[in-house]
Amino acid sequence: MVERKERTSHRTAPEHTHPDDVPILTALAALADPVRASLVREMAKSPAWTRSCGSFDVPVGKAALSHHLVVLRGAGLLEQRDEGPKRFNRLRREEFDARFPGLLALVLREE
Amino acid sequence: MVERKERTSHRTAPEHTHPDDVPILTALAALADPVRASLVREMAKSPAWTRSCGSFDVPVGKAALSHHLVVLRGAGLLEQRDEGPKRFNRLRREEFDARFPGLLALVLREE
Repeated sequence: MVERKERTSHRTAPEHTHPDDVPILTALAALADPVRASLVREMAKSPAWTRSCGSFDVPVGKAALSHHLVVLRGAGLLEQRDEGPKRFNRLRREEFDARFPGLLALVLREE
Repeated sequence: MVERKERTSHRTAPEHTHPDDVPILTALAALADPVRASLVREMAKSPAWTRSCGSFDVPVGKAALSHHLVVLRGAGLLEQRDEGPKRFNRLRREEFDARFPGLLALVLREE
C-alpha cells in the first residue's frame, strides 16, 4: 500500500495541449494510427472519466500505450487526471470538434 | 528526342485508387505529411491538369517526390496522366470530398 501511494504521489501530472493550439497535420498524424484510432473510438463509446488507462483493449504493451496516450494528449484529443493509483481519461470531443469540425466524426464512423 | 520519346512510351501508366475504396486512416496518413499537404495545397490553387510533376515547389528530390505522389494516388487524392514526356496532375477534390466531407477543407484552410 505504501509503495502504491508513493508511486502515485511522485507521478508527474500529465501535460495537456488544447486543440486550439494544435496544427491540423498534428491532429491528422495522431488519428492516422490504428491503435490511437481504436483508443479514440473506445473513449467515444464511454462516458467521460470512466476509462482508466488499464481498461483499454488494444494489442500493445504498457510503454507503447503510454506513448500513444502522450500523442493523443499532444493533439488535443485527450484529457487525463489521476485518481489514487489510477489515471482516468476523457476524449476532448467538444473542444476538438470546435477546432476541427467533422474530423473526429470521420474516424468514429468507420471501425 | 528519340531517347525522350522512348522513355515516355515505356513508362507504366499510373495506378489509381478511387476515394470510395480508401479507409479513413489511409486518407489521414496521406494528408498528415507536410510535403504531401503542400502538394495538395498547390494543386488546390491550380486548375485541374495544369500542374506537371516538375512544377511542384517542394523541398525534396525526384525519388521522394515520386513516392509522395504514389501515396496521394493510393489515398484517392490524386489523378495523373501522361502527355508526351510530362505527367500531369489533378486533385480529386469532388470525389474525395464526397467520401470524406470536410477533411480536405481542414488541410487547405491552414498553410
